[in-house]
Amino acid sequence: MHLSEKTLSRNIIYEGKVFTAALDSVELEDGSTASRELVLHPGGAGILPVDDEGNITLVRQFRAGAGCVLTEICAGKLEKGENPETCALRELSEELGLKAGRVIPLGFMEATPAYDSERTYIYLALELSQGQSHPDEGEFIDIVKMPFEKALKAVYDGTLTDGKTQLALLKAERILRGKA
Amino acid sequence: MHLSEKTLSRNIIYEGKVFTAALDSVELEDGSTASRELVLHPGGAGILPVDDEGNITLVRQFRAGAGCVLTEICAGKLEKGENPETCALRELSEELGLKAGRVIPLGFMEATPAYDSERTYIYLALELSQGQSHPDEGEFIDIVKMPFEKALKAVYDGTLTDGKTQLALLKAERILRGKA
Repeated sequence: MHLSEKTLSRNIIYEGKVFTAALDSVELEDGSTASRELVLHPGGAGILPVDDEGNITLVRQFRAGAGCVLTEICAGKLEKGENPETCALRELSEELGLKAGRVIPLGFMEATPAYDSERTYIYLALELSQGQSHPDEGEFIDIVKMPFEKALKAVYDGTLTDGKTQLALLKAERILRGKA
Repeated sequence: MHLSEKTLSRNIIYEGKVFTAALDSVELEDGSTASRELVLHPGGAGILPVDDEGNITLVRQFRAGAGCVLTEICAGKLEKGENPETCALRELSEELGLKAGRVIPLGFMEATPAYDSERTYIYLALELSQGQSHPDEGEFIDIVKMPFEKALKAVYDGTLTDGKTQLALLKAERILRGKA
């Protein structure tokens, strides 16, 4: 079938806690075969909390993949069978101690679909109430609060580089300005 | 140092053509150690061509990571030492046969920075001229032309799911409307 690929075999190279690496053999539409290096990941969810004064809360942490400290929306990996919104609200509570009275889905992104199955769901959290945060052990994060407009400017000037964070801010803008 | 991680050792698990998988041992800021599963990737570049009539050109292809056909901006992996803009223009020519009289950088995104080093650079291509495309062998792609506004709507309604494609369209909108 046009544009389809059929998996002929899968060789699991590595099975970790974060991802599984695999090497597939696939049949292309012209009958030829090719190999596909794959990263299999359960997916993630991130959430942007915006308070009634128009301030947002982000987290700063060292990211081993990027090899540097990044400022991002709070996010985490989906647990087995977990609903993405449940995951996002769990992270919001654990990392920031926030509860949301209203949650608006902002879609999802395929992070790097050529070889990685990770799909990252994004949410906007409104009508916030503050509780106690309780980050995972061994998780060192700083909490950063700033006006929404300042963060949006940081997307455009290239200071905020994380993909899901940029998308969350750009998509939230339309909703917060009442254009959606 | 606060928020930093120091790499103590690296164990290469797999070295492929697309990515390398590694398992690092790192020292955290409190002196404890942790392991980090990593995908090392050279990075990529994607480009959104917009013609003088406000039409854009995207590509549709099967994506092994996502496991489905996706519609995306034309993009590719950086060759060793390659400048991201050079890569984007190479892909624009190879996949779409287009040359750009004007290229505007739209920043980059960390695709999934917790474990993957891939950084994807994004560009807007204007003042286009059409030549002959010459896709790589074994690369089956469909070329899709549509009005910019239709694609932007597809970002908001969740039809266009690729991260770099969503970011390219949202960031290009601001430039095309003269807000930047």
